Amino acid sequence: MDLVGLLLGRPLATEEEKAERIGPAKGIPIFGLDALSSAAYGPEAALTLLIPLGMAGIAYIVPVSISVIVLLGIVYFSYRQTIEAYPMGGGSYTVASENLGMWAGLFAAVGISAGVGTLVSAVPAAQPHTLEICLGILALVCLVNLRGVSESGAVFLVPAYLFVGCILAAILIGAVNTMVAGGHPVPVIAPPRIPPATEAVSLWLILRAFASGCTAMTGVEAVSNGVGAFREPTAKYARLTLTCIIAILVAMLAGIAWLTNAYGIAATPPGEPGYQSVLSMLIAAIGGKGWFYGVSMGAIVVVLSLSANTAFADFPRLARAIAQNGFLPHSLTTRGRRLVYTQGVYMLTILAGALLLFFDGITDRLIPLYAVGAFLAFTLSQAGMVLHWKRVRGRGARRSMWINALGALATGLTAAVVLLAKFTEGAWITVLLIPGLMLMMRMVKRHYVGVAREIACHTPLSLANLQPPLVVLPLDSWSRVTRKALRFAMVLSSDIVALHVDAGEQSDALRQRWHELVETPALQAGRKPPELVVLPSPYRFVVQPILAYVLEMERSHPDRQISVLVPELVERRWYTNLLHNHRSAVLKTLLLFKGNRRIAVINIPWYLDE
Amino acid sequence: MDLVGLLLGRPLATEEEKAERIGPAKGIPIFGLDALSSAAYGPEAALTLLIPLGMAGIAYIVPVSISVIVLLGIVYFSYRQTIEAYPMGGGSYTVASENLGMWAGLFAAVGISAGVGTLVSAVPAAQPHTLEICLGILALVCLVNLRGVSESGAVFLVPAYLFVGCILAAILIGAVNTMVAGGHPVPVIAPPRIPPATEAVSLWLILRAFASGCTAMTGVEAVSNGVGAFREPTAKYARLTLTCIIAILVAMLAGIAWLTNAYGIAATPPGEPGYQSVLSMLIAAIGGKGWFYGVSMGAIVVVLSLSANTAFADFPRLARAIAQNGFLPHSLTTRGRRLVYTQGVYMLTILAGALLLFFDGITDRLIPLYAVGAFLAFTLSQAGMVLHWKRVRGRGARRSMWINALGALATGLTAAVVLLAKFTEGAWITVLLIPGLMLMMRMVKRHYVGVAREIACHTPLSLANLQPPLVVLPLDSWSRVTRKALRFAMVLSSDIVALHVDAGEQSDALRQRWHELVETPALQAGRKPPELVVLPSPYRFVVQPILAYVLEMERSHPDRQISVLVPELVERRWYTNLLHNHRSAVLKTLLLFKGNRRIAVINIPWYLDE
Repeated sequence: MDLVGLLLGRPLATEEEKAERIGPAKGIPIFGLDALSSAAYGPEAALTLLIPLGMAGIAYIVPVSISVIVLLGIVYFSYRQTIEAYPMGGGSYTVASENLGMWAGLFAAVGISAGVGTLVSAVPAAQPHTLEICLGILALVCLVNLRGVSESGAVFLVPAYLFVGCILAAILIGAVNTMVAGGHPVPVIAPPRIPPATEAVSLWLILRAFASGCTAMTGVEAVSNGVGAFREPTAKYARLTLTCIIAILVAMLAGIAWLTNAYGIAATPPGEPGYQSVLSMLIAAIGGKGWFYGVSMGAIVVVLSLSANTAFADFPRLARAIAQNGFLPHSLTTRGRRLVYTQGVYMLTILAGALLLFFDGITDRLIPLYAVGAFLAFTLSQAGMVLHWKRVRGRGARRSMWINALGALATGLTAAVVLLAKFTEGAWITVLLIPGLMLMMRMVKRHYVGVAREIACHTPLSLANLQPPLVVLPLDSWSRVTRKALRFAMVLSSDIVALHVDAGEQSDALRQRWHELVETPALQAGRKPPELVVLPSPYRFVVQPILAYVLEMERSHPDRQISVLVPELVERRWYTNLLHNHRSAVLKTLLLFKGNRRIAVINIPWYLDE
Repeated sequence: MDLVGLLLGRPLATEEEKAERIGPAKGIPIFGLDALSSAAYGPEAALTLLIPLGMAGIAYIVPVSISVIVLLGIVYFSYRQTIEAYPMGGGSYTVASENLGMWAGLFAAVGISAGVGTLVSAVPAAQPHTLEICLGILALVCLVNLRGVSESGAVFLVPAYLFVGCILAAILIGAVNTMVAGGHPVPVIAPPRIPPATEAVSLWLILRAFASGCTAMTGVEAVSNGVGAFREPTAKYARLTLTCIIAILVAMLAGIAWLTNAYGIAATPPGEPGYQSVLSMLIAAIGGKGWFYGVSMGAIVVVLSLSANTAFADFPRLARAIAQNGFLPHSLTTRGRRLVYTQGVYMLTILAGALLLFFDGITDRLIPLYAVGAFLAFTLSQAGMVLHWKRVRGRGARRSMWINALGALATGLTAAVVLLAKFTEGAWITVLLIPGLMLMMRMVKRHYVGVAREIACHTPLSLANLQPPLVVLPLDSWSRVTRKALRFAMVLSSDIVALHVDAGEQSDALRQRWHELVETPALQAGRKPPELVVLPSPYRFVVQPILAYVLEMERSHPDRQISVLVPELVERRWYTNLLHNHRSAVLKTLLLFKGNRRIAVINIPWYLDE
């Protein structure tokens, strides 16, 4: 087996597609890693904003978390309906594009894909990974995804469930302790002392904390974009997967909010000495810093660094849906050897890699952008569903419509709050980025439409005016390569010009030999002899005079096709290629770019090692 | 004027060559920079080895320098004769290869080219330049040389003569002071105190000091390699240039040796705190640290960093001489737009750049290697001249032969001393490098000889068995592009196979339309209709099945030529190219590399913006 086979596994036939489909057990790690891992940073983001309130801030985490959970519930019910309505996948893009028209559909897609790219870049902010490790993980995730959906589910199974198990176990122990202690448990390891308040409570501060806490909701849309990856009945399994993800996420968010409050844990300022993550303080307070603490922290680190995988499960499918409508390069719709939309995986890897490289220091600024994008996508998706139900009508449609309308309203308001709260922190980029990407997609679509219109052909083959082309054969000297090319030219046409560029040598000798070597045998065979044209080249250029001659010939024979025969020595070993000039390659390229439809290039290869 | 024109100047016609030729005024900076600048490091290198002798060491600089100067004189007379004997240039390579045979000729050439590369890398050791500045200077020197010989002479004129003027002026003032003071002048600024001796004098130490001092001789062969650059009478002007260079160099070496001894200046250990170059101490001792000191030091820095220019004047001419004999890629013989051997300039730039990058920290180790290479080249050149005179005979030939024999003996002994003295310091690399490079050159030659034999053709064009090819046309769907290609195929042959790869779509529709769109009109025109072959592709590969089909067809029709028509959409804007798959380019490349002589590729371009 070759290297590619070893890395990616054997090719999968198109008909093996069904076997690659997944159920909820693999669906949760594949599509849920993003959403679930946000339990590790969502509450923390909210608590960080509450630091200025001191002790009082801790109390506010409960209402903020409840708001987030309620919103999550609304979004959950909305996406459940989306899955049911669009069992082929494509999620918010499909919904928005079919119902709100092209522009809104692109809008949602851009929000999601910008978010997907950003999530990857957000990983180093969540923990002190170096750039190299980030790129390494990126490469790993890319490779695993190229091996196929089913396999990536198997790889991420253990860390995902370990993470969920640890957090839920910690919450359970903490909950028992809290109830036994009557609401005021004694921490095993006391959290750091909370500094005094420096600000009074304000609605604006609470709103901003809520906006930050909402980052815990990102990734919820992934399942609805990837419905196509599930086993039959796809809608049922996708819905089940979404329900499990949301249920686990709600349990974690609620538990964390309750227990941080009960144990009196406040966030520590990030990036300053003594910083400790909220989950670290909480788990240490509940169970001490034993093996359980170690396993939990390890699982958090692994899951956070692998949460990019959801983007890899999500983006290629979404990009394919958009590309099928002509708004992104067609190659995104091609399935690779493992039935994955390979080009989408590569595109995301390059995008994420570029973000990691360029925004390395300032990934924090991209998180707000991501949140805005995600909530815009949520809103458009729900709004699209409202129109969908309005069109469908019938039993239950009215109720469904109201659920989606509520969802659209709630997520729309949240999007506005997040945009406002985080505008100066980077959310303004969305305002520039989204129209830019939409414009680009429109241009892609226009290009494809133009090309399709231009090459469309409904008339049958016409054989009228089938005339042999004028043949041009550039040659350096008389050799077996030249002779072979000239024989080919004689098959093609009787109008042959052999072009020799004279940079100050051997052309006289060639001219004399031409008569004997070419003209005489041609006349003897009753054929028109090929004409030898010598082009002087005072500046020693070789390719340019040939190109100029061909273009001039094309102009002076507006009714003829021109065929340029390019004899080429082919070396099968790359290093011997260094020993030959590559004029034929340069000539071919220039003819392709400077030529036009009436000029065809014919490559006559001569293999040296035969 | 375009960017290239702005950077490199207008193209020069081949017949303008005479105007580009130079005289001694430009010849000295172009071919002498390497030799002259070595006055700045040769004596220093010798003095550094004498440090362990303390005060006593200073006295030994005079005999060591005298030995170097005597050797220089011998080499000078030898090269004078070389110029006379070989007025076409090529120097030690030409001499050695014509007289001592191929192997020895390569030996000399490799020594020179290895040295040339090393000199460039030696610059950062001579002064604390950073890698970036080195690469910048390299790029500058490369650019200046691409602009032509005459112009590079003009650019290096001022720094070269300023350097020579400053050093000679300092020596003159110092000499007057010394004579006035009766041999013991009072330094304006006293040199650092000389530490006590740590070693006794030994012949081995003196020999090593001599070997180090010999680095002052490198670069002397440059004029003889570049005779072709001089005005008519070339030999006369080249000889005059060589004489001037050697005279100036001898004056500088002698003056420096005498005055360092008179002023009591010893070298300071390089790389340690308090290090100061010998020339810096000497000029400060003679004239103080005023404006003259500043100008002199500036000129030394500029000339050392530009001394690589000699390599650029020398190497491309030498490489051309070797390439003309088939031992290096033929492209080295091509003159670029400014009549320079452009490829040689590029090759040297890449070589020097790579040396700068990889040996940055250890360039010191490459200097011994350079010295060995240079002296091997000297020796072989002289030995070659001995054989030359022996063959020529006639008046004066006997005298000339003895001069060269003395030169060969002296430089041969020096080469042995340098190799022995510097063996562990890096000269051992020469022992590996030179046979390696010689082997490579032999292989290049063998390759060229093989190719020439293979493509050589002395028989005239034969028009027997001129049969139309079997045509294969891969197509995706029926379009104007396909229709145009099919028309071309019908001109070419009546045996046409249209290949469609079915990865699970539209092939049924195509099959039905084929009858109506292609077969019917072909039959109506009385032509054999092209056959549609559908290749199933369960693994969704597109290019591979086409390739396999073509190769199989080639095998099953051993008597026919195969022509593969590749229709290709050409985008004139690079970015729209991203929107199309590049299967046709991949197919063309694979056909070229996996195909054979009976398979020709015909490219039918379709331009989109017309």
